[in-house]
Amino acid sequence: MDAATQDELLALQTEVEEIDQQIMLLLGVRFRCTDQISAMAREQGLDAIDAPYQAEQLSSIQTMAMEAGVPSELAATILTAVLDVAAEHDRRLREQPYS
Amino acid sequence: MDAATQDELLALQTEVEEIDQQIMLLLGVRFRCTDQISAMAREQGLDAIDAPYQAEQLSSIQTMAMEAGVPSELAATILTAVLDVAAEHDRRLREQPYS
Repeated sequence: MDAATQDELLALQTEVEEIDQQIMLLLGVRFRCTDQISAMAREQGLDAIDAPYQAEQLSSIQTMAMEAGVPSELAATILTAVLDVAAEHDRRLREQPYS
Repeated sequence: MDAATQDELLALQTEVEEIDQQIMLLLGVRFRCTDQISAMAREQGLDAIDAPYQAEQLSSIQTMAMEAGVPSELAATILTAVLDVAAEHDRRLREQPYS
């Protein structure tokens, strides 16, 4: 690999790493938002899972994915994994609110 | 739910939706970067999978996740799913480069 190709490769790898960093920061903010939403639901005596809202989110993120050139199955996999983490956190707080 | 609580909930849901949009856009850019990296590897006759680099990426994204308040297992799940999509795309291009 010549020096120019090596430089181009390093620049691309750096961009990928910066994107991963941004995605993790965005996910951190997302969890802080959903923790607040879950806390409001608990205070209002509402169910943990709002199935119609989640179906709407799934449909919405799949549309966003397609527009961004991302496979919609990948968007669904990521959303499901993110929602599972948030639901597990909420479940623990509902079971042991003062732990 | 009173009007102020309803407004707060809607604001949080909007923020979550905007975050999902940003994550999808970032993933779209990420795939364009990794498509270029894969094309360079194919042109240079290099292997599709660079295992030491992927191990480094996994370790790096898990550190970023912890710093951002995101479970490191979730970061690993997302990275694996993203790498799988990129690897499958590269595999198809290696098998049928002119399709």
